[in-house]
Amino acid sequence: MADKKTIIVFSGDMDKVMASLIIANGAAAMGSEVTMFFTFWGLNTLRKAQKIKVKKDFMEKMFGWMMPRGAEKLGLSKMNFGGIGAKMMKSIMKKKNVNTLPELIESAQMMGVKMIACTMSMDVMGIKEEEIIDGVEFAGVASYLGEADEANVNLFI
Amino acid sequence: MADKKTIIVFSGDMDKVMASLIIANGAAAMGSEVTMFFTFWGLNTLRKAQKIKVKKDFMEKMFGWMMPRGAEKLGLSKMNFGGIGAKMMKSIMKKKNVNTLPELIESAQMMGVKMIACTMSMDVMGIKEEEIIDGVEFAGVASYLGEADEANVNLFI
Amino acid sequence: MADKKTIIVFSGDMDKVMASLIIANGAAAMGSEVTMFFTFWGLNTLRKAQKIKVKKDFMEKMFGWMMPRGAEKLGLSKMNFGGIGAKMMKSIMKKKNVNTLPELIESAQMMGVKMIACTMSMDVMGIKEEEIIDGVEFAGVASYLGEADEANVNLFI
Repeated sequence: MADKKTIIVFSGDMDKVMASLIIANGAAAMGSEVTMFFTFWGLNTLRKAQKIKVKKDFMEKMFGWMMPRGAEKLGLSKMNFGGIGAKMMKSIMKKKNVNTLPELIESAQMMGVKMIACTMSMDVMGIKEEEIIDGVEFAGVASYLGEADEANVNLFI
Repeated sequence: MADKKTIIVFSGDMDKVMASLIIANGAAAMGSEVTMFFTFWGLNTLRKAQKIKVKKDFMEKMFGWMMPRGAEKLGLSKMNFGGIGAKMMKSIMKKKNVNTLPELIESAQMMGVKMIACTMSMDVMGIKEEEIIDGVEFAGVASYLGEADEANVNLFI
Repeated sequence: MADKKTIIVFSGDMDKVMASLIIANGAAAMGSEVTMFFTFWGLNTLRKAQKIKVKKDFMEKMFGWMMPRGAEKLGLSKMNFGGIGAKMMKSIMKKKNVNTLPELIESAQMMGVKMIACTMSMDVMGIKEEEIIDGVEFAGVASYLGEADEANVNLFI
């Protein structure tokens, strides 16, 4: 029986990205092959925290400047209040010993979860390969569909 | 052939929760086994409407106070306008003889839909077992993944 | 092996609808049978752009007036800024040669993607069959579940 899981991470909200990573880590820990396909706002999860020098046109610069740079900067989908909600959530998670997003990404990668950044979204949003954290592959929707065909659980988050 | 369905209810929006319950009720009526896994904002769907006396720290109290208490209190994901949208929607649903959320929950439970509250989210959001309506089980992501492995339809809402 | 895909399009956000159509077009191009089930806000994607004369009560008129009329009018789920974000996105997509939503709908229909409008949502939101673009079928949740049972990838967007 197929025991592969795929997750499309479309959302760039801290809470939804956290849910996707907890499922991915759980599935990998239970022996499943897992592929996460980051697209659209979800791409922000994979951006390096530091500013990277790359050539961008005006629109790309504007998008890049307005969107959060990396997992640490994501906001909540509800009750974010300009970042206060996300800060509160992080302080609670710390107190409750829940892993942070960067820690969840690291453990997922260590357990062999495949992370793919959607090249078409990168093109539209002007995000360059150099801006994406290490260990991430680059591919398009055909690649996602190939993986989903072999999986028994496919989620869109 | 597997004929089980699982639905992760991450959202706490009235419209999305309604969609999840209509699918769950439909699938159960057609003879499928259904498991709904309520996590994060979705947990608010399962909160008792009345205030329950439980011990909470400051952050937990604040979260508890800011989040809707029960299915009756959820707002729309769009055009909510501070609850007016949700009220309008309910009045339309009544006129069109569509079941309310509490009715959909009750019928789902009567048809044997398994409802699970995510313990990790409960811990993070400070929601205690006593605050959750009757007939709900408590479990974590491993339990979800076990069920999803046996299902042929798995949705994240 | 089943090679069918189903997508519930619940969202009426331009970016999410675009994701659903790109997946649907990709899957159809790769030889999969695809069914898209448009419900709730997603229905707005299928509305004709022009105003259609139909009988509506007060609430239905109000809903119809407040919701976007057709794929061309949808806004972004984030950074929409009253439509400026959606306009920016469209101008970027044009520059990058990405198809518009109406083009994606047309190509999906030409490749045989089945589009279903959820009759229950239409009833609740007061959208009439005459207001829906050509080539769309009308059905309910039982119809969706029948299709999902035969599919190996089922997404909720």
